Amino acid sequence: MPQPMACPVLPTTGALRPIAIDDVRLTGGFWGKRQERNADRTIGHCLTWMRRAGWLANFTAAVDGTLPAARRGREFSDADVYKVAEAMAWEVGRSGNERLDKEVLDFGELLAAAQHPDGYLNTKFEAARYSDLEWGHELYCYGHLMQAGVARLRTAGEDDLTAVTIRAADHVCAEFGPDGRERVCGHPEIEMALVELHRATGERRYLEQAKLFIDRRGTRTLADIEFGRQYFQDDVPVKQADVLHGHVVRALYLACGAVDVAVETGDDELLGAVVRQWEQTLASRTYITGGMGSRHQDEAFGEAFELAPDRAYAETCAAIASVMLSWRLLLATGEARFADLIERTLFNAVAVSPDEQGTSFFYRNTLHQRRLPDLPVTDAESPRAAAGMRAPWYEVSCCPTNIARTLASLGGYVATTDVEGVQLHQFMAAQIQTDVADLHVQTDYPHDGKVTVHVLRTVSREWTLSVRIPSWAANATIRTGDSQQTVRPGYAKVRRKWQAGDQIVLDLPMTARWTWPDPRIDAVRGCVAAERGPLVYCLESVDQSNADLATLAVLTTQPPEPSGGLTLTAPARWSRLPDRSWPYGNAITPQELSSTAVFVPYHLWGNRGPSTMRVFVPEHPPQ
Amino acid sequence: MPQPMACPVLPTTGALRPIAIDDVRLTGGFWGKRQERNADRTIGHCLTWMRRAGWLANFTAAVDGTLPAARRGREFSDADVYKVAEAMAWEVGRSGNERLDKEVLDFGELLAAAQHPDGYLNTKFEAARYSDLEWGHELYCYGHLMQAGVARLRTAGEDDLTAVTIRAADHVCAEFGPDGRERVCGHPEIEMALVELHRATGERRYLEQAKLFIDRRGTRTLADIEFGRQYFQDDVPVKQADVLHGHVVRALYLACGAVDVAVETGDDELLGAVVRQWEQTLASRTYITGGMGSRHQDEAFGEAFELAPDRAYAETCAAIASVMLSWRLLLATGEARFADLIERTLFNAVAVSPDEQGTSFFYRNTLHQRRLPDLPVTDAESPRAAAGMRAPWYEVSCCPTNIARTLASLGGYVATTDVEGVQLHQFMAAQIQTDVADLHVQTDYPHDGKVTVHVLRTVSREWTLSVRIPSWAANATIRTGDSQQTVRPGYAKVRRKWQAGDQIVLDLPMTARWTWPDPRIDAVRGCVAAERGPLVYCLESVDQSNADLATLAVLTTQPPEPSGGLTLTAPARWSRLPDRSWPYGNAITPQELSSTAVFVPYHLWGNRGPSTMRVFVPEHPPQ
Repeated sequence: MPQPMACPVLPTTGALRPIAIDDVRLTGGFWGKRQERNADRTIGHCLTWMRRAGWLANFTAAVDGTLPAARRGREFSDADVYKVAEAMAWEVGRSGNERLDKEVLDFGELLAAAQHPDGYLNTKFEAARYSDLEWGHELYCYGHLMQAGVARLRTAGEDDLTAVTIRAADHVCAEFGPDGRERVCGHPEIEMALVELHRATGERRYLEQAKLFIDRRGTRTLADIEFGRQYFQDDVPVKQADVLHGHVVRALYLACGAVDVAVETGDDELLGAVVRQWEQTLASRTYITGGMGSRHQDEAFGEAFELAPDRAYAETCAAIASVMLSWRLLLATGEARFADLIERTLFNAVAVSPDEQGTSFFYRNTLHQRRLPDLPVTDAESPRAAAGMRAPWYEVSCCPTNIARTLASLGGYVATTDVEGVQLHQFMAAQIQTDVADLHVQTDYPHDGKVTVHVLRTVSREWTLSVRIPSWAANATIRTGDSQQTVRPGYAKVRRKWQAGDQIVLDLPMTARWTWPDPRIDAVRGCVAAERGPLVYCLESVDQSNADLATLAVLTTQPPEPSGGLTLTAPARWSRLPDRSWPYGNAITPQELSSTAVFVPYHLWGNRGPSTMRVFVPEHPPQ
Repeated sequence: MPQPMACPVLPTTGALRPIAIDDVRLTGGFWGKRQERNADRTIGHCLTWMRRAGWLANFTAAVDGTLPAARRGREFSDADVYKVAEAMAWEVGRSGNERLDKEVLDFGELLAAAQHPDGYLNTKFEAARYSDLEWGHELYCYGHLMQAGVARLRTAGEDDLTAVTIRAADHVCAEFGPDGRERVCGHPEIEMALVELHRATGERRYLEQAKLFIDRRGTRTLADIEFGRQYFQDDVPVKQADVLHGHVVRALYLACGAVDVAVETGDDELLGAVVRQWEQTLASRTYITGGMGSRHQDEAFGEAFELAPDRAYAETCAAIASVMLSWRLLLATGEARFADLIERTLFNAVAVSPDEQGTSFFYRNTLHQRRLPDLPVTDAESPRAAAGMRAPWYEVSCCPTNIARTLASLGGYVATTDVEGVQLHQFMAAQIQTDVADLHVQTDYPHDGKVTVHVLRTVSREWTLSVRIPSWAANATIRTGDSQQTVRPGYAKVRRKWQAGDQIVLDLPMTARWTWPDPRIDAVRGCVAAERGPLVYCLESVDQSNADLATLAVLTTQPPEPSGGLTLTAPARWSRLPDRSWPYGNAITPQELSSTAVFVPYHLWGNRGPSTMRVFVPEHPPQ
């Protein structure tokens, strides 16, 4: 087996090489605090609900032979148990938490007992294996099992969980290999999991099976459904698609697997296809928060520029999947644009999901809450679509468990190495160990634009420290000793023979700014958004002392101004509109009242009780 | 039994009294042609597909005892067969069509054979009666059976179909009466059907059962579902709701039943509640076309002012249900606002559904088609959500059959009588027979604003002819003999001792106009719509010779101008926008190109092959 290295994604080739999560220790700050909260609260919260909802007990029932009668939860609930196992595996690898280690060991033992002799393992379909590939999620569940197994292999070595994983992977290869069922799963996931298991074990059959699944996708091996085959990307082969389409999480997971296969097999055409799809998706199908997916009905991408804030779906899992995809493309290409999107998505579309305690979550992340939402269900699983406020658990609870595994392994997304040196992609307070140097990153980012990188230890030869300058950062500067230079978006590279005690100071301009949407995004015509650094802001009704959020409009002659804490303000006008029996007719010019619009970071919204909210705000006067 | 009178809705009390469809004969013109097309093409088309899809054969299978194995179609397909039967009954009543009369007789015979001895009749649930009231639609199906039976009673008298209807109604009263199951149906419909059957037969138990269903609704006798109990209006009692909410067709059908019960039982509180809900719905939850329902996922109303044109659902059945509700409220109150909404809805949200041949239909009626739609499925049932173009049939084909029964009985919505005289609500070329007079209405409305009412026969005492002046019509005039007067929106009343040969000429101002949306409808900020008379217009890409519909903006200093045929034009600007990798940033001021925007009536769109389309168009410059 290859030398284990604790990375969520570990390609054998590519422009950049990841750093293991035990070599990047977050030290407080925006993300370090969230990672600690995840360890202290969220993972345990997920375990509790997993037991309460009966999803863990389904495996005991499998052992006891009481399925299907005893089964609880949706058909894919096994996957959420696996995602928590993955989160625990990363957390054990990161912090050595012994209690969670015991949980993983116990769970592995349970799985080993539940697994069939031929490697089959699923609590829903054991009596009707692979009878519903469109909706059954069996291979999707294996994928999450494998990602848990890979996390364990890379952080703790072989045990029951990893043995179960390998037996399951062998089973999948036997069942769905070249001589097996010529089918794919309705929900992609297993493709990237198989590649990672190949990377973790050296077993080439897993890569070949992943390639088979990618090659089969789009050849209509799945049945047509109400939403059409585009829902699960079985309408057109991966290489031929122009843009990510259909169900967002499915589309992004599939693209991750395609990149993994492309990288490991040297398929530049496939890699190029995914890069083009990413570009088109970013140019016309992504919310300003980085969120993706405008449709509730099928959790799908809308058409180009169909990005109404009202019913923004922007599922938390889609944001996480987007980070996973961009990270793979960053490793493959070394291009800053992928790290830019990761930053935007993490700070807005991902960070908004958990509440400040880390124990309740948004499933979908709207950009406009028109009415005061109902209080969340706290003593039962919430129906996902109803979430106008964060809820502790959902009938479909993919998002909390995805948050848990992502935050536990977040250190892995901060920096990389290549032959030239070290690349710092995300600004998180951290200790980073690499072959060429140990670094200490100090920052209060994103609340402050200063990022100091201390060189604690270094090899004695010349190497390059590359620091990403975000695309929004005009006139950033880097100071090294006495010299200061203005740097442009992309990677600012400082090459020299470093010495322990050296430091560089990056200064990012944190002036707040107005951002205008493309005129083709009709739903936000005449509106602006406030941004500062990587943060998108919003207006919450609780902060607007004397104005109606439904009619508030901001003056944009000056940028929004800081006004203490994390808030921004701007002069504004609002109006009391007349009640009309029919909302169409002659243009009305209501009397305007002066006010001040108070913005807060989007990711913080909804933490102070029911509130209405909007990210895009009308501009006054219209431009 | 009461004297049969061929009206779709026949209250025993109320401000206005309907006129039977055999006393209002449409004579060509906009609606007359559509009614003929419905008789010649649509009803036969529905019959053909009903057979092809196997929905009619389900009843034969019930007789043969081959259910459930032989069953085809969705769980509610019985209802669509009943709706075609209703359409045929009205058509026989209207035109005496013998072929259709034979179809109804044969169908009644089949139903009589399929009905269980206790009156139960449903091809889906006979082995598990009333086991799924949330989704099973059993009572909904009875409702449509009863509406077919009522149509038959009122146009032809008793036969197999009406006997089956009465046995089914007695069965429902026994099963769901005061001593029966304390439940309601997940899809309202039976409430209004029972009231109408009470009106047609004089049987008071049916009214009492309808009242029971209305009283039970909102008391949570149905299970909670993912969409919440508001989906089927079981969240709050009818009298306590502020606005129509949840699934649109369910909400409107329920409101119809509530009005019917309120009118027959003298429950002014209930009637007042529905009127208030109608007002709130109109003020903030209705598209300019009269379409209702902005959400695809649960076919539901959105929040107040959540009216994005992009994903406007505006189901055809919802438009028809809205006409049904407003008609009931008009009969109850005599207020012109209800007739105004009927007109707007018929000319836009209903008329848009069928194509020019009457053999393919929109299921949902968007207000913005961003990309060239795929060609429709013509040789199979279309999945409903995919309809970017009209399709001949749908897996859920409620809309074509609803169109068929509505057009066959459309004469019933034109005029009414009261103690003062005759009220003309809709301007359709027609011959109208009433107790006080026979009238001939001549008009080319809505293409022309002139409506001439000839008095062909009259009683010799004084009576009042009331003519609705639409709310959009400023400075309309009425000429009677030599005298002409300007009349205001509402009912213009001419009282006199009429003589055969008299005529009055209504002249409605048909100048096209720009219409601005309320500023709270964020999704169309900065946009206008073109209207002329009752018609909403739209831009279709096929008409814009040299401009991109995605960036076209109109100058509104002058009203849109007629330019031959039915089109309107306005000076416009459009721009070629730069490709950008990220659609948010600094405001861009692209180079503008001059053009002319060409508008066509919304109801005609999509008849010339795949086209993009928009109703709301940006205004240039922004206001």
